[in-house]
Amino acid sequence: MTPRTTRVVCLVRRPDGEPVPGDFAVEERALPPVGAGHVLVRNLYMSVDPSMRGRLESTEKHYTHNFTPGSPLDGRALGVVEESRCPSVPVGAFVRHQLGWRERAVLDGADTDGAERIDPRLAPLPTWLGLLGQTGFTAYVGLTRIAALRPGDTVLVSAAAGAVGTAAGQFARLLGAERVVGTAGGPDKCALLVEEFGYDAAADHRAEPVREALARLAPDGVDVYFDNVGGEQLAAALYALRPGGRVALCGMMSQFGGERRPVDINQLIQAVLKRLTLRGFIVRDHDDLRPEFEQRVAHWLADGRVTARETVVDGLENAAGALLSLLDGGNVGKMLVRLG
Amino acid sequence: MTPRTTRVVCLVRRPDGEPVPGDFAVEERALPPVGAGHVLVRNLYMSVDPSMRGRLESTEKHYTHNFTPGSPLDGRALGVVEESRCPSVPVGAFVRHQLGWRERAVLDGADTDGAERIDPRLAPLPTWLGLLGQTGFTAYVGLTRIAALRPGDTVLVSAAAGAVGTAAGQFARLLGAERVVGTAGGPDKCALLVEEFGYDAAADHRAEPVREALARLAPDGVDVYFDNVGGEQLAAALYALRPGGRVALCGMMSQFGGERRPVDINQLIQAVLKRLTLRGFIVRDHDDLRPEFEQRVAHWLADGRVTARETVVDGLENAAGALLSLLDGGNVGKMLVRLG
Repeated sequence: MTPRTTRVVCLVRRPDGEPVPGDFAVEERALPPVGAGHVLVRNLYMSVDPSMRGRLESTEKHYTHNFTPGSPLDGRALGVVEESRCPSVPVGAFVRHQLGWRERAVLDGADTDGAERIDPRLAPLPTWLGLLGQTGFTAYVGLTRIAALRPGDTVLVSAAAGAVGTAAGQFARLLGAERVVGTAGGPDKCALLVEEFGYDAAADHRAEPVREALARLAPDGVDVYFDNVGGEQLAAALYALRPGGRVALCGMMSQFGGERRPVDINQLIQAVLKRLTLRGFIVRDHDDLRPEFEQRVAHWLADGRVTARETVVDGLENAAGALLSLLDGGNVGKMLVRLG
Repeated sequence: MTPRTTRVVCLVRRPDGEPVPGDFAVEERALPPVGAGHVLVRNLYMSVDPSMRGRLESTEKHYTHNFTPGSPLDGRALGVVEESRCPSVPVGAFVRHQLGWRERAVLDGADTDGAERIDPRLAPLPTWLGLLGQTGFTAYVGLTRIAALRPGDTVLVSAAAGAVGTAAGQFARLLGAERVVGTAGGPDKCALLVEEFGYDAAADHRAEPVREALARLAPDGVDVYFDNVGGEQLAAALYALRPGGRVALCGMMSQFGGERRPVDINQLIQAVLKRLTLRGFIVRDHDDLRPEFEQRVAHWLADGRVTARETVVDGLENAAGALLSLLDGGNVGKMLVRLG
């Protein structure tokens, strides 16, 4: 019998400063009926993304909606079809969609914005949310289109042990980068960057100013900087970049976090002196690159040339904690919540 | 008889904070002999440029040399040939060159990096250093190539009453901009922007935060921002820019000046949310555009469609003061020193 309700993770209130567990709650909500063309999906994996942090705030966005207190969160998820009124999506099919942060969801089965079928034989389910999902695609678009990576480039990636960072470092190498340097917080992550994710060198931003580390680890400078954090690390990169260097601005996690002392925007004078290009992007503007991306990365995965790494947390009741942990740097690779 | 010496403006010492008159001195220096292929030039006009501010510092540049204490300054200038050992450059010819900040100079007449002949019948001499010189070319390159101005765009220019700003506003209009908004310091400059330089509106950054002014003066947002100042105004522009907006980073005068409170680099999150492109440039990388520029601007000048405006200071002994005045915003249009 079709379930009438589902457990969801709701935003209780907007965070006052840093988000805390009490800002979220698991609640029971009614499920809409499964209308013609729709499917009922039971979620198996849910993506936990840094971009959710900004959506907790009230400031209006230009590319997505913010979360609303009293309403469920949402996000990328992967589930199995339990009931179908859509002929092209049978019961048992695996679909990727946007209605995560809940156990079950009713989706339009026909719409590619609704439920996108995936083939679990091509890659394990978590990979469809990580290296083969928006995460990997973000790394690919940022490197190839936004930063226009060229063979022989030296590439710098911040938050390199994160989901996008572990993808970006590996992709950069496979796309012809000569040297790939990453930044991460703490010696364990830095060791992983070199040992597992193919980075040539790693800078521990907790142990040393990144600008000093880069003078040592990329003494000849950097051609491409994939920025996930902004702040001090962006400023350090501006000094490390070579003339003509390119920066893909993917996110600025350092904008959050309380006592941080502001980093002067006028360090962008380096962009004048060295003719740098900085370009912000939102991955979904670049869907024309997706077939190329999926084909290349599926090959790399099949050949064992890239490593998919996930940090998996179990249970909807631990989902909000997984987000808080992600924002505190508690993950290596893709952060996922696994459901029942 | 060939003069053996010339008066020059020397840097006495690097500024300690803001430059002061005592950092400069007029001194007498030997002139080199006029060798084969060389010419002796008496300078008539010398360009005073904001970019000289950075060259007073010790920090290494990637595109030019810094001034050295004990040595003469240099800069764009226009003079008349007094003696020639270069057959293609007769006595009486007018030449544009890089050895300003002195009364006389000996130059290689054949080299385009040395003395470039100009035709005084095409435009008045000061215009060859202003609208038809590096100044106008900077505005042209920034708008057309760096910011990729498109017909119908709304364009914002900071330091709009300055040399590059007065050129950029007028060029933007002639290149098809639908609305052109400028920022300047004080009501007099703001009035001039609208009355003389074809701006649709002007924001007085001394009277009101630029971000608030732009919400009123460009309520539908801005497509192109020509940045001459950085700091608060750059941040304000990041908020005013529309999705897909483009920023030409030309200089960051607000990096100088003592008590300024830093503006947070993480306001660049707007560049992510709105897919902005920021691109720094140095005009001399774009000399391939120069013939196109000269032809178009010469036509605009001949048709009276652009206004060349200069602030002229007389005498080498007042040249350093002219630079200090420029850095304090004491000019409208191109700042020039006229000699003898």
